[in-house]
Amino acid sequence: MELGVGGSNPPCCTKKMVKNKKSKPSKELPAGFVDRREKELLIRDFVVSNIKEIMIKYGFQYLETPSFEYTDSIGKFLPDKERPDSGVFSFKDENNWLSLRYDLTAPLARYVAKNYLELPKPFKRYQLGTVWRNEKPGPGRFREFLQFDADFIGTKNLMSDAELCLMISEILKKCGLEKKDFTIKWSTRKITDSLFEKLKINLSSKRLKILRSLDKLDRLGWEEVKKLLGKGRKDRSGDFTIGAQLSSNEIKDIYEIFIKKEATLSAENFDEKVGKDIQDMKKYLALFGLENSIFDPSIIRGLEYYTGPVFEVNLNFQVKNPKGKNIQFGSIGGGGRYDNLVSNFGNLDCPSTGISIGIDRLVFALMQKKDFKIKSTRPVIICVFEQNKFQEYIDILNKLRDSNISSEIYPNEGKLKKQMEYANKIGSPAVILYGDNEIKSGKVTLKNLRTGNESSVKIEDLVDEIKKII
Amino acid sequence: MELGVGGSNPPCCTKKMVKNKKSKPSKELPAGFVDRREKELLIRDFVVSNIKEIMIKYGFQYLETPSFEYTDSIGKFLPDKERPDSGVFSFKDENNWLSLRYDLTAPLARYVAKNYLELPKPFKRYQLGTVWRNEKPGPGRFREFLQFDADFIGTKNLMSDAELCLMISEILKKCGLEKKDFTIKWSTRKITDSLFEKLKINLSSKRLKILRSLDKLDRLGWEEVKKLLGKGRKDRSGDFTIGAQLSSNEIKDIYEIFIKKEATLSAENFDEKVGKDIQDMKKYLALFGLENSIFDPSIIRGLEYYTGPVFEVNLNFQVKNPKGKNIQFGSIGGGGRYDNLVSNFGNLDCPSTGISIGIDRLVFALMQKKDFKIKSTRPVIICVFEQNKFQEYIDILNKLRDSNISSEIYPNEGKLKKQMEYANKIGSPAVILYGDNEIKSGKVTLKNLRTGNESSVKIEDLVDEIKKII
Repeated sequence: MELGVGGSNPPCCTKKMVKNKKSKPSKELPAGFVDRREKELLIRDFVVSNIKEIMIKYGFQYLETPSFEYTDSIGKFLPDKERPDSGVFSFKDENNWLSLRYDLTAPLARYVAKNYLELPKPFKRYQLGTVWRNEKPGPGRFREFLQFDADFIGTKNLMSDAELCLMISEILKKCGLEKKDFTIKWSTRKITDSLFEKLKINLSSKRLKILRSLDKLDRLGWEEVKKLLGKGRKDRSGDFTIGAQLSSNEIKDIYEIFIKKEATLSAENFDEKVGKDIQDMKKYLALFGLENSIFDPSIIRGLEYYTGPVFEVNLNFQVKNPKGKNIQFGSIGGGGRYDNLVSNFGNLDCPSTGISIGIDRLVFALMQKKDFKIKSTRPVIICVFEQNKFQEYIDILNKLRDSNISSEIYPNEGKLKKQMEYANKIGSPAVILYGDNEIKSGKVTLKNLRTGNESSVKIEDLVDEIKKII
Repeated sequence: MELGVGGSNPPCCTKKMVKNKKSKPSKELPAGFVDRREKELLIRDFVVSNIKEIMIKYGFQYLETPSFEYTDSIGKFLPDKERPDSGVFSFKDENNWLSLRYDLTAPLARYVAKNYLELPKPFKRYQLGTVWRNEKPGPGRFREFLQFDADFIGTKNLMSDAELCLMISEILKKCGLEKKDFTIKWSTRKITDSLFEKLKINLSSKRLKILRSLDKLDRLGWEEVKKLLGKGRKDRSGDFTIGAQLSSNEIKDIYEIFIKKEATLSAENFDEKVGKDIQDMKKYLALFGLENSIFDPSIIRGLEYYTGPVFEVNLNFQVKNPKGKNIQFGSIGGGGRYDNLVSNFGNLDCPSTGISIGIDRLVFALMQKKDFKIKSTRPVIICVFEQNKFQEYIDILNKLRDSNISSEIYPNEGKLKKQMEYANKIGSPAVILYGDNEIKSGKVTLKNLRTGNESSVKIEDLVDEIKKII
């Protein structure tokens, strides 16, 4: 994948580029990045426009923060501080470090802190934007995602948390999924908080390590997670991850809560604080009538900043990778309550909650689930016979485009055969032949490329005839 | 602007973040980046949807390349190799340098080289995407832009170049500008090529320096550009830029061509190659009937890779900066022919041409020119009286949302006064009061916040009554 791209100096750090005149630059993309083509982009547009419509209905405002933030502003909330290759893309700018955002929540907290006095409380905003993760590249692991986020800033009321779950459900249904196609699982971080209290684990780095290990339950299973909670684990590539060093008794306690779920599915099994979160979530979810949501204490979420309810959206249908192999697809979104994130910027009391969807992942899954009738529109081609007849060709082109018909004059020079090959290659529905004979007779020859039929059409009837074909 | 953001180590290069526990992170953004709010984003959506519609009509395909490329792949075409602070954002990734794209053309060339055999020729694609320039920050200088590009790949025919100008004109008109509001100026790089031949300037770095100096004519005027062509120039900040070291005779030759324009406005004044470009462009622009385009030899464009016609779109109305001061706005877009860019990746014959619009700049100008009736939709608020009446509130909410009315239950806890303050703050059109008395009577009190009028409305009439208000 990485042919011909030696480790040259970066243009931003040296006075002159180090150029290797002999080697051509690489045609390849760095691992974790992809080119996206029309079909995927059109379905993405469909998803995005559904989201925007629902956001208006639910009363959210549209906001966009930039790609870069000061590293310090988002630095406290790095996804994985312990792995140097698993963080953010950072860049030194004269005296300061800038980073590409790794999510849309940390920049939102910065925005709220900056505009605190001016904003309504609660403040409901949504954002669509790319986020970047400088993670170890691997198959199917992307380092750039289009993400959608909606957040309630400045409310303790768990109705908001439940409403976010309802909203996600409405978005997925509008995009063509049925109730049975997805499940919203939720829990509360108060469960792990209370566990840490019980086990007397106060060190934040140790807590984070345990959270991260538990978050991998879905993907790795209990036996592997057990290793991460204990001494450590060697992954398939041979990399060893140091574990959280918990004792076997401690690991047993965790097993009771997170794996023997049947014992823990009611609020009574938890202390008061935990119980209140669970009761409130159940109450509001029931009031909203959200059917496909379930309480699942094994839902953790990977980020450090959550303080209350956490949720995760999982798909219930089989997804294949580009090679046709069934894959464990994981969640397409999730979120949770983060009551202290804004207050990191000052003494600002801002209990908040939010949810995200990974748009590219959703589009990937939707393309497999739903037979989208989104058709790429391809232009009708007006063939070129004579260089001195362009006025005639352009007159026809204008006529078609004025009627909003996708069309073009063959955009090169070449014989008719080459023009027909081009028309077929791009999937054009029809070509228009307008040679000397046609011009004299005031008619064009319209060739339907799907059927092969040719017909002689008066210029004034051309628009109508083409509309029958496309 | 940059309070409290000391030069800490980047998270990607050290094992542990260096954290200063005493100082809060900065609430500010790095210079050159901005937060964008709803009004601007809605107008941007309007511009983007116009562009997409016209792209389909003109027969272009939708493509998206990623933010990052190998630095080598786009490195030959850096905007300004001589200024280390005026390039791209680059990151070291294990063995390779990655860069954020600084335009959409260099990544397109890489994409075409990678997929050469599979693509139709010509290949017409468009893209909308953010580009980044790591330029010296300053007032009004952004380091991140949303850009639109459309390109013809694989055609020598200058009809394409002319059609791009027509297309831009149609986009601007669809966005609300009139013919008199903008001018498309064009020239050809063959003029400077022929000048370099005449002056026997072969060194590519010297050529680039002259091109860049001439490109600043618009902004700096001839007297300052003269200094850049000669010994050098000190800018307002005191920075000295070394000039191209041309002799006064050479500078006089340049003056004749680029400043004494009246002598040069016809094709006959140029040699054959130059003349053909000018004649062809004039012919096709006339055939397309594009009225507001003019040939202007002082149009240069700042990038190195152009080989033929170049174009620039300028606005003809006054634009003010956020402080209300009239500013020289410059171009909102442009482009040109780049016949050799794809062949840098291998022996691929791919004469090409393309055009860009700076969307954020266009939106900024449009907001001043046109009184957009784009109104942010704000939700109707259902006030909360009793915690045990949520089922009733949610029933009303569902009724409104089912009719696609933007609405919400007050998303916090608090007295009615606080709820009304919130409704006014967010610009809500109406609140719904549904207390005990109302629930008993089967009616709600609907308060129009624009007029202050209150009315008692049967629940079955609520949707209709609200539609009269919003």
